Amino acid sequence: MLIVQKYGGTSVGSLERIEAVANRVIESAKQGHQIVVVVSAMSGVTNTLIEQAQYFSPNPNGKDMDMLLSSGERVTSALLSIALNEKGFNAISFSGRKAGIITDSVFTKARISYIDSRAIKEALNEGKIVVIAGFQGVDEEGNVTTLGRGGSDLSAVAVAGALNADLCEIYTDVDGVYTTDPRIEPKAKKLDKISYEEMLELASLGAKVLQNRSVELAKKLNVNLVTRSSFNNNQGTNITKEDGMEKALVSGIALDKNQARVTLRNVEDKPGIAAEIFSVLADENINVDMIIQNVGVDGATNLGFTVPQNELELAKNAMKKILHADTIVESDSAVVKVSIVGVGMKSHSGVASRAFKALADENINIGMISTSEIKISMIVHEKYGELAVRALHECYELDK
Amino acid sequence: MLIVQKYGGTSVGSLERIEAVANRVIESAKQGHQIVVVVSAMSGVTNTLIEQAQYFSPNPNGKDMDMLLSSGERVTSALLSIALNEKGFNAISFSGRKAGIITDSVFTKARISYIDSRAIKEALNEGKIVVIAGFQGVDEEGNVTTLGRGGSDLSAVAVAGALNADLCEIYTDVDGVYTTDPRIEPKAKKLDKISYEEMLELASLGAKVLQNRSVELAKKLNVNLVTRSSFNNNQGTNITKEDGMEKALVSGIALDKNQARVTLRNVEDKPGIAAEIFSVLADENINVDMIIQNVGVDGATNLGFTVPQNELELAKNAMKKILHADTIVESDSAVVKVSIVGVGMKSHSGVASRAFKALADENINIGMISTSEIKISMIVHEKYGELAVRALHECYELDK
Repeated sequence: MLIVQKYGGTSVGSLERIEAVANRVIESAKQGHQIVVVVSAMSGVTNTLIEQAQYFSPNPNGKDMDMLLSSGERVTSALLSIALNEKGFNAISFSGRKAGIITDSVFTKARISYIDSRAIKEALNEGKIVVIAGFQGVDEEGNVTTLGRGGSDLSAVAVAGALNADLCEIYTDVDGVYTTDPRIEPKAKKLDKISYEEMLELASLGAKVLQNRSVELAKKLNVNLVTRSSFNNNQGTNITKEDGMEKALVSGIALDKNQARVTLRNVEDKPGIAAEIFSVLADENINVDMIIQNVGVDGATNLGFTVPQNELELAKNAMKKILHADTIVESDSAVVKVSIVGVGMKSHSGVASRAFKALADENINIGMISTSEIKISMIVHEKYGELAVRALHECYELDK
Repeated sequence: MLIVQKYGGTSVGSLERIEAVANRVIESAKQGHQIVVVVSAMSGVTNTLIEQAQYFSPNPNGKDMDMLLSSGERVTSALLSIALNEKGFNAISFSGRKAGIITDSVFTKARISYIDSRAIKEALNEGKIVVIAGFQGVDEEGNVTTLGRGGSDLSAVAVAGALNADLCEIYTDVDGVYTTDPRIEPKAKKLDKISYEEMLELASLGAKVLQNRSVELAKKLNVNLVTRSSFNNNQGTNITKEDGMEKALVSGIALDKNQARVTLRNVEDKPGIAAEIFSVLADENINVDMIIQNVGVDGATNLGFTVPQNELELAKNAMKKILHADTIVESDSAVVKVSIVGVGMKSHSGVASRAFKALADENINIGMISTSEIKISMIVHEKYGELAVRALHECYELDK
């Protein structure tokens, strides 16, 4: 088999941990598999680099930041390759550029354009274990770029897709995907399998095992993902196509604390106004999540949306620039989003009403509601976040 | 003017120091100069990376080491560029690759093949200050390489040459070039000027201000070098062409402690034997320094040479492989090399005899002697190194 293994920051958080990762890679290699490893920076390194940059500037420019931040993964990849070679295995470290990861030029959150996998394939054909610095690539002009949060996962999935790998294992410090965060609900259970679609909703909704960009890409490229712990030998969670899976009504409950709500009151109710608002937000690279628009009255309407908390000020300023003077921009960052995810929802009615009742029983007021085929999301006051998760986990009997 | 400024590890040894460097760069920029900056890793960083690599392997492979070691300079270049931008100056950080520094593939001690300076020129034309990560380049296959000790100086000189810069300033933590090491002889005086040739001898002989590779390259490319301190505003030392300079009899005394002597006794005295010995040493990339061969007797001869101490074992093993069984390989690493350098020597006799007498007066035995047009080098026991320096400094009245 050709296996891509990705090790996150805590998995390579010390020299001893890198040694343990080397041994794990070797176990797989000894089974006759071809191995490509993608590594993150050692935990803490990226934050230290960010702090150093902020010593000089509250808002350092992206090109320099990418030059700075990309160094952490390069160090880990070199050290792991050195460890593998010392143990008698032929390994080589690749920067994102050498691995052929070509991106656009949106510095600090670049998107992968394509993978030129020739150098990786050549090294694999020479019997080498290829150790790639995750999180980074290079744009068409040869500038170093980084892929934003969760970027190393994305590197791994993209490489797995380009190589048509049999498996892409994402190693972290947790055993897999749970029905909800075990720190909030100790009765949470690990899932053996979950569909891309469900994982996508869970990832984007605050289950931090995998970023949604990685799951989206895995789905698109049909990459067979497994998320598991590098600290033990427990089976992880398979993330795969929906077909043939038992359709659980609800697979999990997610809590996203990094939410801020913006409400626009008295917006001119005319064709194209929503398009204008959200294209401005897109131009600023603001990640808009939920969007709610009520039916308009007297030529005016109210419009609400949520953004990550650190993008709230940017979003508000963008709104003030384009909106009519009569429009009121309100915001609230003391909110969280609780979500119910499950492919089984598609074919079952009553899932939503059960959720609303469960929260009502706990006297939790729901600020915004948004639903998709396999997800129901609710904005509630931040102080009720954990309570809402536990109530919903119980109401769908996820601990059974 | 177009000025290349290079800042060494102690000059960028902390965030505060990087800020100070930014201010110094800005002073030059405000005078209307175009500035290219080349930076080293923050002091200590490279050693930490080497220690991390050695945790895994006593002899890590060069390709991975270069991936590892090149990260330090990238961090410094990014941080300095961020600092400059924050202070209102348009700056950009370049990796060695982006700066177009193309090298051969001798990992960990690559040589620069050529500089493709288009990206630097383009950025300068856009009014930018270009901050280049020193010590690194890229080979023709796109692998990261590093240039070995003093590599950042070399980056700076090569870039200055390629850009036809008016000046290349090498900033360190010392004021310039001294008649000898002031820690050994407090009466040592700073030189205002020195020729490339003299500096070359001093650099290769242990005056650590500049590595000889950098001075050689500066001479070849006719780069106007200045070495000075980044910690004060003192004038430094100009390193320039010999023409028109007052020819001092002796400019300085150098001490090189990183020497080991190899003596080959009973070497077959036939044509080609020396060529064979030194081509084998060259193949192993061993830096041979002094070479002494006596006249042969009875078809056998003795041959002595010196190498850096850390290459002694490698050199001895290489010798054992090719030499006749009767040849005896002896070595001694408890030696130092003391050298007298001065362009004035060319036209004055008696310089050598004065030196030998000065050492004899101190009862210092001379193990090997080697002379060139502007240099006399002597191998003595390491315990007499400092004493020899002081005796020679006094005998040529360098404190006057």
